[in-house]
Order: sequence, then structure tokens, then C-alpha cells
Amino acid sequence: MASVDNPSETGGRVIAASKVSGTSVYSEAGEKLGNVYDVMLNKVSGKAEYAILSFGGFLGIGDKYHPLPWNQLKYEPRQGGYVINLSRDRLEGAPAYAASEMSVWDDLRGHDIDDYYGHGAGLAS
Amino acid sequence: MASVDNPSETGGRVIAASKVSGTSVYSEAGEKLGNVYDVMLNKVSGKAEYAILSFGGFLGIGDKYHPLPWNQLKYEPRQGGYVINLSRDRLEGAPAYAASEMSVWDDLRGHDIDDYYGHGAGLAS
Repeated sequence: MASVDNPSETGGRVIAASKVSGTSVYSEAGEKLGNVYDVMLNKVSGKAEYAILSFGGFLGIGDKYHPLPWNQLKYEPRQGGYVINLSRDRLEGAPAYAASEMSVWDDLRGHDIDDYYGHGAGLAS
Repeated sequence: MASVDNPSETGGRVIAASKVSGTSVYSEAGEKLGNVYDVMLNKVSGKAEYAILSFGGFLGIGDKYHPLPWNQLKYEPRQGGYVINLSRDRLEGAPAYAASEMSVWDDLRGHDIDDYYGHGAGLAS
């Protein structure tokens, strides 16, 4: 059962957007990489377009936020979190933004991210 | 340009899920009805399934939250908010939950809401 108070309860099909932040993100090998910091939604369709990830100290870039196209994340119920299949090198070279830059989001940033990860790249794994 | 600090800036295509709450909800006639309180996302697809609305004092049920299927909301850029085409009677009879009930969400609740509003009802307006 999904709980809006406890995002680690992950049995339900849906989760409150306000509580997606904090959900764990793992590598394919099961290593915990970080957490979801926020999700960017398309205002019209309601579709999640980008997951903004915080990797903490993992990449030595704890103060940066990495937006990934949503299709790069695969939900894994057993782990109660998302799995991403991206190498360390790939993540280190990815578009990332300081906390101070996260107060504003413009659509050009979306283009940079889409270009880096490739359009629909996450669909063919 | 969408701003995660200022959800009333609504020029952008996407908005941070954490800031959807607070977005205004209007009637077709342009009357402000309330605000989005939260959004329930499908964990796998990232699709918004329900918008949880808070109508404040409008219906005399200010302490209740009304989850609506996402397709009942139409984003209106000129107003910077969502428009719903539902009569007062329809809203008053709709599934609603006290704040104390919002800490847990189970999928049966989704069925109640879908049944009330009709599956895909919001698509044919």
C-alpha cells in the first residue's frame, strides 16, 4: 500500500508526487546511487518527463542535481525504488545543475538533457 | 518559464511535481474553486493518475480532499491553472477524504473514484 507519509511503503500502484522525492535509485548491480529529488511533470498531460536525481556523495558531486528523462528509470518493486542503467562515466558527463540553478527550469534545459541521453534511449535498453 | 520556487510562473511546458500543489483550479466560468493539493503518479509510467484537489471553503467542505482522475483537469495557460467542468452537485457527491485519511492511499480508492467520474469521462467533454 502506497503511503504518502512513508514513501518507503511501495506496494501500491501510485505514489503521491510530493513524496516521490526520497525514493531510492539503484544501479543495475543493486548499488544504491542516490535518491529522486523531484519530478518534472508535463502540465497538460500530467506525464513525468524528467526525474531529478540527487546522487549525494556517490559521484563526488553531491551538490549537483541530475535531471534524467523519465524513461531512463525503471521501477523495481522488490527494491522499492528505481533502477538506472547508466555507467559512472555517463553520469559524470551528464547535464547537472547546482541547487541554486534548480529554482528555475526552462525548456532549453530539457533539450540539453534529451540530446545527452538520446530521445527514447531509455526505451531500448 | 516554469519555476520550482514560484508555481504561479506558468510559461513553461513542465512543472516540478513538488510545486504542482498550490496550482489554482477554476470552473469553466472562470470562478476559482480551489487548488491542487497533490498529484498521484503511477510509479512505473510516471503518468499522473489523480489530482487531489482542495476546495477550501467553496463547497463548505474545506477539510476534505477530492481526488479527481487527471483527465478531468484541463490546463489553461492564460489562467495559469487547471479548469474542471463539474457542477457543484457533482463535486459535492464525489468521493472525498479527510486529511487524516490522506496519509494512506490504497488502490481500492482509485476504483471508487474511477467509478464515480466514469472511466475516460474527462476525455469526452
